[in-house]
Amino acid sequence: MAVCVALIQGASRGLGLEFCKHILKNKPPASVIATCRNPDGAAELRALAAEHPARLTRSVRLRRGFGGSGGLDLIVNSSAILHPSGRGETSLRDVTAQGLSSTLTTNTVGPLLMAKHFAPLLQKGGGGFGQQPAETVKQHSGIIVNITAKVGSIGDNGLGGWYSYRMSKAALNMATRNLSIELGRTRPRVVCVCLHPGTVNTDLSRPYHKNVPKDRLFSTQHSVNCLMNIIDTLNIEKTGKAYSWDGSELPW
Amino acid sequence: MAVCVALIQGASRGLGLEFCKHILKNKPPASVIATCRNPDGAAELRALAAEHPARLTRSVRLRRGFGGSGGLDLIVNSSAILHPSGRGETSLRDVTAQGLSSTLTTNTVGPLLMAKHFAPLLQKGGGGFGQQPAETVKQHSGIIVNITAKVGSIGDNGLGGWYSYRMSKAALNMATRNLSIELGRTRPRVVCVCLHPGTVNTDLSRPYHKNVPKDRLFSTQHSVNCLMNIIDTLNIEKTGKAYSWDGSELPW
Ligand SMILES: NC(=O)c1ccc[n+]([C@@H]2O[C@H](COP(=O)([O-])OP(=O)(O)OC[C@H]3O[C@@H](n4cnc5c(N)ncnc54)[C@H](OP(=O)(O)O)[C@@H]3O)[C@@H](O)[C@H]2O)c1
Ligand SMILES: NC(=O)c1ccc[n+]([C@@H]2O[C@H](COP(=O)([O-])OP(=O)(O)OC[C@H]3O[C@@H](n4cnc5c(N)ncnc54)[C@H](OP(=O)(O)O)[C@@H]3O)[C@@H](O)[C@H]2O)c1
Repeated sequence: MAVCVALIQGASRGLGLEFCKHILKNKPPASVIATCRNPDGAAELRALAAEHPARLTRSVRLRRGFGGSGGLDLIVNSSAILHPSGRGETSLRDVTAQGLSSTLTTNTVGPLLMAKHFAPLLQKGGGGFGQQPAETVKQHSGIIVNITAKVGSIGDNGLGGWYSYRMSKAALNMATRNLSIELGRTRPRVVCVCLHPGTVNTDLSRPYHKNVPKDRLFSTQHSVNCLMNIIDTLNIEKTGKAYSWDGSELPW
Repeated sequence: MAVCVALIQGASRGLGLEFCKHILKNKPPASVIATCRNPDGAAELRALAAEHPARLTRSVRLRRGFGGSGGLDLIVNSSAILHPSGRGETSLRDVTAQGLSSTLTTNTVGPLLMAKHFAPLLQKGGGGFGQQPAETVKQHSGIIVNITAKVGSIGDNGLGGWYSYRMSKAALNMATRNLSIELGRTRPRVVCVCLHPGTVNTDLSRPYHKNVPKDRLFSTQHSVNCLMNIIDTLNIEKTGKAYSWDGSELPW
Protein backbone atom coordinates (compact mmCIF):
# COMPACT_ATOMS: atom_id res chain seq x y z
CA MET A 1 0.00 0.00 0.00
CA ALA A 2 1.19 3.51 -0.80
CA VAL A 3 2.45 5.53 2.15
CA CYS A 4 0.05 8.16 3.42
CA VAL A 5 1.03 11.75 2.51
CA ALA A 6 0.00 15.06 4.09
CA LEU A 7 0.74 18.46 2.59
CA ILE A 8 0.94 21.29 5.11
CA GLN A 9 0.78 24.76 3.58
CA GLY A 10 2.21 27.56 5.74
CA ALA A 11 4.59 25.26 7.62
CA SER A 12 7.31 27.72 8.57
CA ARG A 13 5.90 28.42 12.03
CA GLY A 14 2.81 28.47 14.21
CA LEU A 15 0.11 25.88 13.65
CA GLY A 16 1.42 24.78 10.25
CA LEU A 17 4.79 23.82 11.74
CA GLU A 18 3.04 22.04 14.59
CA PHE A 19 0.95 19.97 12.16
CA CYS A 20 4.20 18.76 10.59
CA LYS A 21 5.64 17.82 13.98
CA HIS A 22 2.44 16.12 15.06
CA ILE A 23 2.12 13.96 11.98
CA LEU A 24 5.79 12.97 12.03
CA LYS A 25 5.48 11.98 15.68
CA ASN A 26 2.04 10.43 15.78
CA LYS A 27 1.26 9.14 12.30
CA PRO A 28 4.22 7.05 11.13
CA PRO A 29 4.89 6.07 8.43
CA ALA A 30 2.94 9.02 6.96
CA SER A 31 5.15 11.48 5.16
CA VAL A 32 4.79 15.25 5.13
CA ILE A 33 5.28 17.84 2.42
CA ALA A 34 5.80 21.17 4.13
CA THR A 35 5.32 24.28 2.00
CA CYS A 36 6.38 27.76 2.92
CA ARG A 37 7.63 30.92 1.27
CA ASN A 38 11.21 30.67 2.47
CA PRO A 39 12.17 27.14 3.58
CA ASP A 40 15.76 28.13 4.24
CA GLY A 41 14.68 30.87 6.60
CA ALA A 42 12.43 28.54 8.58
CA ALA A 43 14.96 27.22 11.10
CA GLU A 44 12.65 24.93 13.06
CA LEU A 45 11.28 23.37 9.91
CA ARG A 46 14.82 22.86 8.61
CA ALA A 47 15.76 21.11 11.84
CA LEU A 48 12.69 18.91 11.57
CA ALA A 49 13.65 17.95 8.03
CA ALA A 50 17.15 17.03 9.21
CA GLU A 51 15.60 14.80 11.87
CA HIS A 52 13.23 13.09 9.42
CA PRO A 53 15.02 13.16 6.08
CA ALA A 54 12.96 10.32 4.63
CA ARG A 55 9.57 11.59 5.72
CA LEU A 56 9.64 15.39 5.49
CA THR A 57 10.02 17.26 2.20
CA ARG A 58 10.12 21.03 2.10
CA SER A 59 8.82 22.92 -0.88
CA VAL A 60 8.53 26.56 -1.80
CA ARG A 61 5.53 26.76 -4.00
CA LEU A 62 2.57 25.12 -5.61
CA ARG A 63 3.64 22.54 -8.09
CA ARG A 64 1.51 20.15 -10.02
CA GLY A 65 2.51 16.56 -9.80
CA PHE A 66 5.39 17.05 -7.35
CA GLY A 67 6.69 13.87 -5.81
CA GLY A 68 5.93 11.91 -8.95
CA SER A 69 2.95 9.66 -9.33
CA GLY A 70 1.60 9.40 -5.79
CA GLY A 71 -1.57 10.87 -4.42
CA LEU A 72 -2.19 13.03 -1.41
CA ASP A 73 -4.27 12.08 1.62
CA LEU A 74 -4.52 15.41 3.41
CA ILE A 75 -3.93 19.09 2.78
CA VAL A 76 -3.96 21.59 5.60
CA ASN A 77 -4.05 25.23 4.50
CA SER A 78 -2.71 27.12 7.49
CA SER A 79 -1.24 30.40 6.17
CA ALA A 80 -2.98 33.59 7.11
CA ILE A 81 -2.41 37.13 8.31
CA LEU A 82 -4.60 39.25 10.56
CA HIS A 83 -3.82 42.28 8.42
CA PRO A 84 -0.63 43.50 6.75
CA SER A 85 -0.09 45.78 9.76
CA GLY A 86 -0.20 42.79 12.13
CA ARG A 87 -3.31 44.15 13.83
CA GLY A 88 -6.93 43.81 12.81
CA GLU A 89 -8.82 47.03 12.07
CA THR A 90 -10.50 48.38 15.18
CA SER A 91 -12.81 50.62 13.18
CA LEU A 92 -13.65 51.80 9.67
CA ARG A 93 -10.93 54.40 9.99
CA ASP A 94 -8.34 51.61 9.65
CA VAL A 95 -9.99 49.97 6.63
CA THR A 96 -8.03 50.36 3.38
CA ALA A 97 -8.30 48.80 -0.06
CA GLN A 98 -4.70 47.61 0.27
CA GLY A 99 -5.26 45.95 3.65
CA LEU A 100 -8.41 44.22 2.46
CA SER A 101 -6.85 43.04 -0.71
CA SER A 102 -3.64 41.59 0.80
CA THR A 103 -5.58 39.85 3.52
CA LEU A 104 -8.05 38.35 1.05
CA THR A 105 -5.21 37.24 -1.21
CA THR A 106 -3.31 35.43 1.54
CA ASN A 107 -6.19 34.04 3.57
CA THR A 108 -8.76 33.24 0.89
CA VAL A 109 -7.38 33.19 -2.63
CA GLY A 110 -4.26 31.23 -1.60
CA PRO A 111 -6.09 28.30 0.02
CA LEU A 112 -8.57 28.08 -2.86
CA LEU A 113 -5.79 27.96 -5.45
CA MET A 114 -4.11 25.23 -3.37
CA ALA A 115 -7.34 23.27 -3.56
CA LYS A 116 -7.63 23.86 -7.29
CA HIS A 117 -4.12 22.65 -8.03
CA PHE A 118 -4.00 19.75 -5.60
CA ALA A 119 -7.55 18.43 -5.93
CA PRO A 120 -6.44 15.97 -8.65
CA LEU A 121 -3.80 14.54 -6.29
CA LEU A 122 -6.28 14.32 -3.42
CA GLN A 123 -8.57 12.41 -5.76
CA LYS A 124 -5.71 9.95 -6.21
CA GLY A 125 -5.10 9.70 -2.46
CA GLY A 126 -5.46 6.52 -0.44
CA GLY A 127 -7.82 7.98 2.15
CA GLY A 128 -5.21 7.60 4.85
CA PHE A 129 -6.66 10.30 7.10
CA GLY A 130 -10.12 10.44 8.61
CA GLN A 131 -12.49 7.60 9.35
CA GLN A 132 -13.51 5.46 6.41
CA PRO A 133 -17.06 4.13 6.54
CA ALA A 134 -17.60 0.46 5.68
CA GLU A 135 -19.60 1.28 2.54
CA THR A 136 -17.08 1.66 -0.27
CA VAL A 137 -19.23 4.17 -2.10
CA LYS A 138 -18.99 6.60 0.81
CA GLN A 139 -15.25 6.36 1.25
CA HIS A 140 -13.02 9.36 0.61
CA SER A 141 -9.64 9.54 -1.08
CA GLY A 142 -8.44 12.75 0.56
CA ILE A 143 -9.21 15.61 2.93
CA ILE A 144 -8.85 19.37 2.62
CA VAL A 145 -8.67 21.28 5.90
CA ASN A 146 -8.85 25.04 5.66
CA ILE A 147 -7.92 26.69 8.92
CA THR A 148 -10.62 29.25 9.59
CA ALA A 149 -11.36 31.34 12.70
CA LYS A 150 -14.39 31.73 14.91
CA VAL A 151 -14.34 35.46 14.16
CA GLY A 152 -15.00 34.46 10.54
CA SER A 153 -18.48 33.32 11.54
CA ILE A 154 -20.99 35.98 10.47
CA GLY A 155 -23.75 34.74 12.75
CA ASP A 156 -21.45 34.65 15.74
CA ASN A 157 -20.12 38.17 15.15
CA GLY A 158 -21.20 40.29 18.08
CA LEU A 159 -18.15 42.51 18.47
CA GLY A 160 -17.27 43.77 15.01
CA GLY A 161 -13.85 45.07 14.02
CA TRP A 162 -11.12 43.07 12.24
CA TYR A 163 -12.82 43.75 8.91
CA SER A 164 -10.24 42.23 6.57
CA TYR A 165 -9.62 39.11 8.63
CA ARG A 166 -13.29 38.41 9.33
CA MET A 167 -14.24 38.94 5.69
CA SER A 168 -11.38 36.75 4.43
CA LYS A 169 -12.43 33.88 6.69
CA ALA A 170 -16.13 34.22 5.81
CA ALA A 171 -15.13 34.02 2.14
CA LEU A 172 -12.87 31.04 2.92
CA ASN A 173 -15.80 29.32 4.61
CA MET A 174 -17.84 29.82 1.44
CA ALA A 175 -14.97 28.51 -0.70
CA THR A 176 -14.77 25.42 1.50
CA ARG A 177 -18.49 24.84 1.22
CA ASN A 178 -18.22 25.08 -2.56
CA LEU A 179 -15.24 22.71 -2.59
CA SER A 180 -17.13 20.19 -0.47
CA ILE A 181 -19.90 20.17 -3.05
CA GLU A 182 -17.71 19.98 -6.13
CA LEU A 183 -15.34 17.38 -4.70
CA GLY A 184 -17.88 15.40 -2.67
CA ARG A 185 -20.55 14.68 -5.25
CA THR A 186 -18.91 11.81 -7.07
CA ARG A 187 -16.10 9.39 -6.40
CA PRO A 188 -13.25 9.79 -5.79
CA ARG A 189 -14.51 11.95 -2.93
CA VAL A 190 -12.54 14.61 -1.09
CA VAL A 191 -13.80 15.74 2.32
CA CYS A 192 -13.50 19.54 2.75
CA VAL A 193 -13.88 21.25 6.10
CA CYS A 194 -12.93 24.40 7.99
CA LEU A 195 -11.38 24.08 11.44
CA HIS A 196 -11.04 26.76 14.09
CA PRO A 197 -7.95 26.18 16.26
CA GLY A 198 -8.97 28.19 19.33
CA THR A 199 -6.87 31.13 20.44
CA VAL A 200 -3.34 29.86 20.07
CA ASN A 201 0.01 31.14 21.22
CA THR A 202 1.56 32.10 17.85
CA ASP A 203 2.92 35.19 16.13
CA LEU A 204 -0.46 35.91 14.57
CA SER A 205 -2.24 36.38 17.88
CA ARG A 206 0.77 37.82 19.75
CA PRO A 207 -0.43 41.46 19.86
CA TYR A 208 -3.52 40.27 21.75
CA HIS A 209 -2.07 37.69 24.16
CA LYS A 210 -2.19 40.03 27.13
CA ASN A 211 -6.00 40.19 26.81
CA VAL A 212 -6.46 36.41 26.80
CA PRO A 213 -6.97 34.53 30.09
CA LYS A 214 -4.02 32.12 30.44
CA ASP A 215 -6.08 28.96 30.34
CA ARG A 216 -7.72 30.11 27.11
CA LEU A 217 -4.48 30.68 25.21
CA PHE A 218 -3.67 27.26 23.77
CA SER A 219 -0.20 25.97 22.99
CA THR A 220 0.19 24.95 19.34
CA GLN A 221 0.60 21.37 20.60
CA HIS A 222 -2.73 21.40 22.39
CA SER A 223 -4.54 23.03 19.49
CA VAL A 224 -3.12 20.65 16.88
CA ASN A 225 -3.90 17.67 19.13
CA CYS A 226 -7.52 18.79 19.24
CA LEU A 227 -7.66 19.46 15.49
CA MET A 228 -6.07 16.09 14.63
CA ASN A 229 -8.66 14.39 16.83
CA ILE A 230 -11.33 16.00 14.68
CA ILE A 231 -9.51 15.10 11.45
CA ASP A 232 -9.33 11.48 12.66
CA THR A 233 -13.13 11.31 12.71
CA LEU A 234 -13.79 13.06 9.39
CA ASN A 235 -15.75 11.34 6.65
CA ILE A 236 -17.98 12.40 3.80
CA GLU A 237 -20.96 12.88 6.13
CA LYS A 238 -19.03 15.66 7.86
CA THR A 239 -17.91 17.50 4.76
CA GLY A 240 -18.77 21.14 4.03
CA LYS A 241 -18.91 22.33 7.62
CA ALA A 242 -16.84 24.37 10.04
CA TYR A 243 -15.79 22.85 13.34
CA SER A 244 -14.19 24.34 16.39
CA TRP A 245 -11.22 22.72 18.21
CA ASP A 246 -13.66 20.98 20.59
CA GLY A 247 -15.54 19.34 17.74
CA SER A 248 -18.60 21.59 17.96
CA GLU A 249 -20.00 22.90 14.71
CA LEU A 250 -19.53 26.62 14.06
CA PRO A 251 -22.41 28.69 12.64
CA TRP A 252 -21.75 30.42 9.33
CA MET B 1 -36.39 70.38 7.44
CA ALA B 2 -33.55 69.30 5.16
CA VAL B 3 -34.53 67.39 2.06
CA CYS B 4 -33.99 63.66 2.21
CA VAL B 5 -31.02 62.41 0.10
CA ALA B 6 -30.27 58.94 -1.26
CA LEU B 7 -26.97 57.95 -2.85
CA ILE B 8 -27.22 55.11 -5.34
CA GLN B 9 -23.88 53.54 -6.23
CA GLY B 10 -23.82 51.64 -9.53
CA ALA B 11 -26.63 53.66 -11.06
CA SER B 12 -25.77 53.34 -14.74
CA ARG B 13 -28.11 50.40 -15.33
CA GLY B 14 -29.88 47.44 -13.80
CA LEU B 15 -31.13 47.68 -10.24
CA GLY B 16 -29.08 50.78 -9.41
CA LEU B 17 -30.75 52.76 -12.19
CA GLU B 18 -34.14 51.47 -11.11
CA PHE B 19 -33.57 52.62 -7.52
CA CYS B 20 -32.98 56.14 -8.89
CA LYS B 21 -36.18 56.03 -10.93
CA HIS B 22 -38.17 54.61 -8.05
CA ILE B 23 -37.10 57.25 -5.56
CA LEU B 24 -37.63 60.12 -8.01
CA LYS B 25 -41.11 58.81 -8.75
CA ASN B 26 -42.28 57.63 -5.34
CA LYS B 27 -40.36 59.61 -2.75
CA PRO B 28 -40.62 63.29 -3.63
CA PRO B 29 -39.09 65.59 -2.60
CA ALA B 30 -36.16 63.23 -1.88
CA SER B 31 -33.15 63.87 -4.06
CA VAL B 32 -30.82 61.28 -5.53
CA ILE B 33 -27.09 61.22 -6.06
CA ALA B 34 -26.36 58.62 -8.70
CA THR B 35 -22.79 57.36 -8.95
CA CYS B 36 -21.35 55.36 -11.78
CA ARG B 37 -18.07 54.94 -13.60
CA ASN B 38 -19.06 56.73 -16.77
CA PRO B 39 -22.06 59.03 -16.32
CA ASP B 40 -21.87 60.29 -19.88
CA GLY B 41 -22.07 56.78 -21.24
CA ALA B 42 -25.14 55.95 -19.17
CA ALA B 43 -27.85 57.18 -21.53
CA GLU B 44 -30.88 56.27 -19.42
CA LEU B 45 -29.40 57.91 -16.37
CA ARG B 46 -28.58 61.00 -18.41
CA ALA B 47 -32.18 61.17 -19.60
CA LEU B 48 -33.40 60.80 -16.04
CA ALA B 49 -31.17 63.67 -14.93
CA ALA B 50 -32.56 65.84 -17.73
CA GLU B 51 -36.08 65.04 -16.53
CA HIS B 52 -35.28 65.82 -12.87
CA PRO B 53 -32.54 68.46 -12.99
CA ALA B 54 -33.23 69.66 -9.47
CA ARG B 55 -33.41 66.26 -7.82
CA LEU B 56 -30.88 64.00 -9.57
CA THR B 57 -27.13 64.61 -9.44
CA ARG B 58 -24.74 62.34 -11.26
CA SER B 59 -21.25 61.73 -9.92
CA VAL B 60 -18.30 59.68 -11.04
CA ARG B 61 -16.56 58.72 -7.89
CA LEU B 62 -16.34 58.69 -4.14
CA ARG B 63 -15.98 62.15 -2.77
CA ARG B 64 -15.99 63.25 0.79
CA GLY B 65 -18.36 66.00 1.60
CA PHE B 66 -19.86 66.37 -1.88
CA GLY B 67 -23.02 68.41 -2.06
CA GLY B 68 -21.83 70.70 0.67
CA SER B 69 -22.95 70.48 4.23
CA GLY B 70 -25.95 68.14 4.06
CA GLY B 71 -26.21 64.63 5.35
CA LEU B 72 -27.26 61.45 3.61
CA ASP B 73 -30.30 59.36 4.49
CA LEU B 74 -29.66 56.26 2.40
CA ILE B 75 -26.88 54.60 0.46
CA VAL B 76 -27.56 51.66 -1.80
CA ASN B 77 -24.44 49.82 -3.01
CA SER B 78 -25.60 48.04 -6.13
CA SER B 79 -22.49 47.51 -8.31
CA ALA B 80 -21.32 43.97 -8.81
CA ILE B 81 -20.09 41.52 -11.40
CA LEU B 82 -20.61 37.77 -11.57
CA HIS B 83 -17.05 37.35 -12.75
CA PRO B 84 -14.89 39.32 -15.18
CA SER B 85 -15.83 36.79 -17.88
CA GLY B 86 -19.52 37.50 -17.31
CA ARG B 87 -20.14 33.92 -16.20
CA GLY B 88 -19.67 32.37 -12.77
CA GLU B 89 -17.15 29.53 -12.52
CA THR B 90 -18.83 26.19 -13.08
CA SER B 91 -15.94 24.29 -11.49
CA LEU B 92 -12.48 24.68 -9.99
CA ARG B 93 -11.06 24.55 -13.50
CA ASP B 94 -12.41 28.06 -14.08
CA VAL B 95 -11.10 29.51 -10.80
CA THR B 96 -8.24 32.00 -11.23
CA ALA B 97 -6.50 34.44 -8.92
CA GLN B 98 -7.36 37.25 -11.33
CA GLY B 99 -11.07 36.37 -11.46
CA LEU B 100 -11.30 36.08 -7.69
CA SER B 101 -9.48 39.29 -7.09
CA SER B 102 -11.46 41.48 -9.55
CA THR B 103 -14.73 40.09 -8.28
CA LEU B 104 -13.78 40.69 -4.65
CA THR B 105 -12.61 44.21 -5.47
CA THR B 106 -15.83 45.23 -7.22
CA ASN B 107 -18.37 43.37 -5.09
CA THR B 108 -16.83 43.56 -1.63
CA VAL B 109 -14.04 46.09 -1.28
CA GLY B 110 -15.96 48.76 -3.23
CA PRO B 111 -19.10 48.74 -1.06
CA LEU B 112 -17.04 48.70 2.15
CA LEU B 113 -15.00 51.71 1.04
CA MET B 114 -18.25 53.49 0.18
CA ALA B 115 -19.42 52.82 3.73
CA LYS B 116 -16.13 54.03 5.16
CA HIS B 117 -16.17 57.32 3.25
CA PHE B 118 -19.87 58.07 3.55
CA ALA B 119 -20.54 56.89 7.11
CA PRO B 120 -19.89 60.41 8.46
CA LEU B 121 -22.53 61.82 6.11
CA LEU B 122 -25.00 59.09 7.03
CA GLN B 123 -24.42 59.98 10.65
CA LYS B 124 -25.49 63.50 9.73
CA GLY B 125 -28.59 62.27 7.88
CA GLY B 126 -32.13 63.11 8.85
CA GLY B 127 -33.33 59.52 9.00
CA GLY B 128 -35.64 60.09 6.05
CA PHE B 129 -35.78 56.44 5.02
CA GLY B 130 -36.98 53.51 7.08
CA GLN B 131 -39.38 53.49 9.97
CA GLN B 132 -38.44 55.62 12.95
CA PRO B 133 -39.47 54.21 16.32
CA ALA B 134 -41.07 56.59 18.82
CA GLU B 135 -38.16 56.30 21.26
CA THR B 136 -35.64 58.94 20.24
CA VAL B 137 -32.70 56.89 21.48
CA LYS B 138 -33.49 54.14 18.97
CA GLN B 139 -33.87 56.39 15.96
CA HIS B 140 -31.45 56.19 13.05
CA SER B 141 -29.90 58.94 10.97
CA GLY B 142 -29.17 56.87 7.88
CA ILE B 143 -29.31 53.46 6.20
CA ILE B 144 -26.73 51.46 4.27
CA VAL B 145 -28.13 48.82 1.92
CA ASN B 146 -25.62 46.44 0.39
CA ILE B 147 -27.16 44.43 -2.40
CA THR B 148 -26.19 40.84 -1.75
CA ALA B 149 -27.38 37.61 -3.38
CA LYS B 150 -28.97 34.45 -2.07
CA VAL B 151 -26.08 32.47 -3.54
CA GLY B 152 -23.86 34.40 -1.13
CA SER B 153 -25.48 32.52 1.74
CA ILE B 154 -23.08 29.80 2.91
CA GLY B 155 -25.69 27.79 4.76
CA ASP B 156 -28.05 27.85 1.80
CA ASN B 157 -25.38 26.74 -0.68
CA GLY B 158 -26.42 23.36 -1.98
CA LEU B 159 -25.26 23.63 -5.58
CA GLY B 160 -21.72 25.00 -5.50
CA GLY B 161 -20.03 26.77 -8.41
CA TRP B 162 -19.79 30.56 -8.92
CA TYR B 163 -16.81 30.63 -6.57
CA SER B 164 -15.82 34.28 -6.95
CA TYR B 165 -19.33 35.69 -6.79
CA ARG B 166 -20.44 33.55 -3.84
CA MET B 167 -17.27 34.32 -1.90
CA SER B 168 -17.53 38.05 -2.63
CA LYS B 169 -21.11 38.17 -1.35
CA ALA B 170 -20.32 36.09 1.77
CA ALA B 171 -17.53 38.56 2.53
CA LEU B 172 -19.90 41.47 1.84
CA ASN B 173 -22.39 39.96 4.28
CA MET B 174 -19.65 39.87 6.91
CA ALA B 175 -18.67 43.47 6.12
CA THR B 176 -22.30 44.52 6.53
CA ARG B 177 -22.56 42.72 9.84
CA ASN B 178 -19.43 44.52 11.03
CA LEU B 179 -20.77 47.87 9.81
CA SER B 180 -24.04 47.30 11.64
CA ILE B 181 -22.12 46.82 14.87
CA GLU B 182 -19.74 49.74 14.44
CA LEU B 183 -22.41 52.17 13.22
CA GLY B 184 -25.28 50.89 15.35
CA ARG B 185 -23.81 50.93 18.82
CA THR B 186 -24.10 54.61 19.62
CA ARG B 187 -26.00 57.56 18.27
CA PRO B 188 -26.17 58.77 15.58
CA ARG B 189 -27.12 55.27 14.42
CA VAL B 190 -26.85 53.95 10.89
CA VAL B 191 -28.89 50.86 9.99
CA CYS B 192 -26.88 48.43 7.80
CA VAL B 193 -28.47 45.53 5.96
CA CYS B 194 -27.99 43.24 2.99
CA LEU B 195 -30.86 42.79 0.55
CA HIS B 196 -31.29 40.04 -2.04
CA PRO B 197 -33.25 41.30 -5.06
CA GLY B 198 -34.43 37.95 -6.41
CA THR B 199 -33.45 36.86 -9.91
CA VAL B 200 -33.84 40.01 -11.93
CA ASN B 201 -33.86 40.74 -15.64
CA THR B 202 -30.56 42.66 -15.96
CA ASP B 203 -27.27 42.34 -17.82
CA LEU B 204 -25.71 40.56 -14.86
CA SER B 205 -28.06 37.60 -15.00
CA ARG B 206 -28.57 37.67 -18.78
CA PRO B 207 -26.46 34.57 -19.59
CA TYR B 208 -28.78 32.53 -17.34
CA HIS B 209 -32.22 33.92 -18.26
CA LYS B 210 -33.10 30.97 -20.43
CA ASN B 211 -32.88 28.66 -17.39
CA VAL B 212 -35.21 30.78 -15.24
CA PRO B 213 -38.98 30.11 -15.29
CA LYS B 214 -40.66 33.29 -16.61
CA ASP B 215 -42.59 34.07 -13.44
CA ARG B 216 -39.38 33.85 -11.40
CA LEU B 217 -37.43 36.38 -13.48
CA PHE B 218 -38.36 39.72 -11.94
CA SER B 219 -38.43 43.04 -13.74
CA THR B 220 -36.18 45.64 -12.13
CA GLN B 221 -39.37 47.56 -11.27
CA HIS B 222 -40.86 44.63 -9.37
CA SER B 223 -37.61 43.87 -7.55
CA VAL B 224 -36.98 47.48 -6.52
CA ASN B 225 -40.62 47.82 -5.41
CA CYS B 226 -40.13 44.84 -3.12
CA LEU B 227 -36.78 46.10 -1.84
CA MET B 228 -38.11 49.60 -1.17
CA ASN B 229 -40.99 48.04 0.77
CA ILE B 230 -38.38 46.40 3.00
CA ILE B 231 -36.35 49.61 3.27
CA ASP B 232 -39.52 51.45 4.34
CA THR B 233 -39.75 49.18 7.40
CA LEU B 234 -36.09 49.24 8.44
CA ASN B 235 -35.06 50.41 11.86
CA ILE B 236 -32.24 49.71 14.27
CA GLU B 237 -33.86 46.46 15.46
CA LYS B 238 -33.47 45.06 11.95
CA THR B 239 -29.85 46.06 11.43
CA GLY B 240 -27.07 43.57 10.71
CA LYS B 241 -29.16 41.04 8.82
CA ALA B 242 -29.74 39.88 5.27
CA TYR B 243 -33.25 39.94 3.83
CA SER B 244 -34.67 38.54 0.65
CA TRP B 245 -37.03 40.54 -1.65
CA ASP B 246 -40.04 39.02 0.13
CA GLY B 247 -38.85 40.23 3.53
CA SER B 248 -37.76 36.83 4.79
CA GLU B 249 -34.42 36.68 6.58
CA LEU B 250 -31.61 34.92 4.71
CA PRO B 251 -29.32 32.51 6.60
CA TRP B 252 -25.62 33.39 6.59
N1 LIG C 1 -3.25 31.91 16.49
C1 LIG C 1 -4.53 32.04 16.71
O1 LIG C 1 -4.99 32.42 17.81
C2 LIG C 1 -5.53 31.69 15.63
C3 LIG C 1 -6.89 31.78 15.92
C4 LIG C 1 -7.81 31.46 14.94
C5 LIG C 1 -7.36 31.05 13.70
N2 LIG C 1 -6.04 31.00 13.43
C6 LIG C 1 -5.62 30.56 12.10
O2 LIG C 1 -4.63 29.58 12.20
C7 LIG C 1 -3.83 29.59 11.02
C8 LIG C 1 -2.37 29.56 11.38
O3 LIG C 1 -2.05 30.77 12.03
P1 LIG C 1 -0.90 30.84 13.12
O4 LIG C 1 -1.54 31.28 14.37
O5 LIG C 1 -0.12 29.58 13.07
O6 LIG C 1 -0.08 32.09 12.54
P2 LIG C 1 1.49 32.34 12.40
O7 LIG C 1 2.27 31.65 13.46
O8 LIG C 1 1.59 33.81 12.26
O9 LIG C 1 1.85 31.64 11.01
C9 LIG C 1 1.33 32.19 9.84
C10 LIG C 1 1.82 31.35 8.68
O10 LIG C 1 1.28 31.94 7.50
C11 LIG C 1 2.33 32.14 6.57
N3 LIG C 1 2.07 33.31 5.74
C12 LIG C 1 1.81 34.56 6.14
N4 LIG C 1 1.63 35.36 5.10
C13 LIG C 1 1.77 34.60 3.99
C14 LIG C 1 1.68 34.86 2.60
N5 LIG C 1 1.39 36.08 2.13
N6 LIG C 1 1.89 33.83 1.76
C15 LIG C 1 2.15 32.60 2.21
N7 LIG C 1 2.25 32.30 3.54
C16 LIG C 1 2.06 33.29 4.39
C17 LIG C 1 3.56 32.37 7.42
O11 LIG C 1 4.71 32.11 6.63
P3 LIG C 1 6.08 32.98 6.78
O12 LIG C 1 6.81 32.34 7.90
O13 LIG C 1 6.70 32.82 5.43
O14 LIG C 1 5.67 34.40 7.09
C18 LIG C 1 3.34 31.35 8.53
O15 LIG C 1 3.71 30.07 8.11
C19 LIG C 1 -4.26 30.83 10.25
O16 LIG C 1 -5.14 30.44 9.22
C20 LIG C 1 -4.98 31.65 11.27
O17 LIG C 1 -5.95 32.50 10.68
C21 LIG C 1 -5.11 31.30 14.37
N1 LIG D 1 -29.73 40.45 -11.52
C1 LIG D 1 -29.86 39.47 -10.65
O1 LIG D 1 -30.52 38.45 -10.93
C2 LIG D 1 -29.27 39.59 -9.29
C3 LIG D 1 -29.50 38.54 -8.38
C4 LIG D 1 -28.94 38.65 -7.11
C5 LIG D 1 -28.19 39.76 -6.77
N2 LIG D 1 -27.99 40.75 -7.69
C6 LIG D 1 -27.19 41.89 -7.29
O2 LIG D 1 -27.85 43.08 -7.64
C7 LIG D 1 -26.89 44.12 -7.79
C8 LIG D 1 -27.15 44.88 -9.07
O3 LIG D 1 -26.91 44.01 -10.17
P1 LIG D 1 -27.69 44.16 -11.54
O4 LIG D 1 -28.43 42.90 -11.74
O5 LIG D 1 -28.40 45.44 -11.55
O6 LIG D 1 -26.45 44.16 -12.56
P2 LIG D 1 -26.12 45.02 -13.86
O7 LIG D 1 -27.36 45.43 -14.56
O8 LIG D 1 -25.11 44.19 -14.58
O9 LIG D 1 -25.46 46.34 -13.26
C9 LIG D 1 -24.22 46.24 -12.65
C10 LIG D 1 -23.80 47.61 -12.17
O10 LIG D 1 -22.53 47.46 -11.54
C11 LIG D 1 -21.64 48.42 -12.11
N3 LIG D 1 -20.28 47.89 -12.11
C12 LIG D 1 -19.83 46.75 -12.65
N4 LIG D 1 -18.52 46.63 -12.46
C13 LIG D 1 -18.11 47.71 -11.78
C14 LIG D 1 -16.85 48.15 -11.27
N5 LIG D 1 -15.75 47.42 -11.44
N6 LIG D 1 -16.82 49.33 -10.61
C15 LIG D 1 -17.93 50.06 -10.45
N7 LIG D 1 -19.15 49.69 -10.91
C16 LIG D 1 -19.22 48.53 -11.56
C17 LIG D 1 -22.14 48.63 -13.52
O11 LIG D 1 -21.64 49.86 -13.98
P3 LIG D 1 -21.15 50.08 -15.51
O12 LIG D 1 -22.43 50.42 -16.27
O13 LIG D 1 -20.19 51.20 -15.40
O14 LIG D 1 -20.54 48.80 -16.00
C18 LIG D 1 -23.64 48.62 -13.31
O15 LIG D 1 -24.09 49.84 -12.84
C19 LIG D 1 -25.53 43.46 -7.74
O16 LIG D 1 -24.98 43.64 -6.45
C20 LIG D 1 -25.84 41.99 -7.96
O17 LIG D 1 -24.89 41.13 -7.37
C21 LIG D 1 -28.51 40.69 -8.93
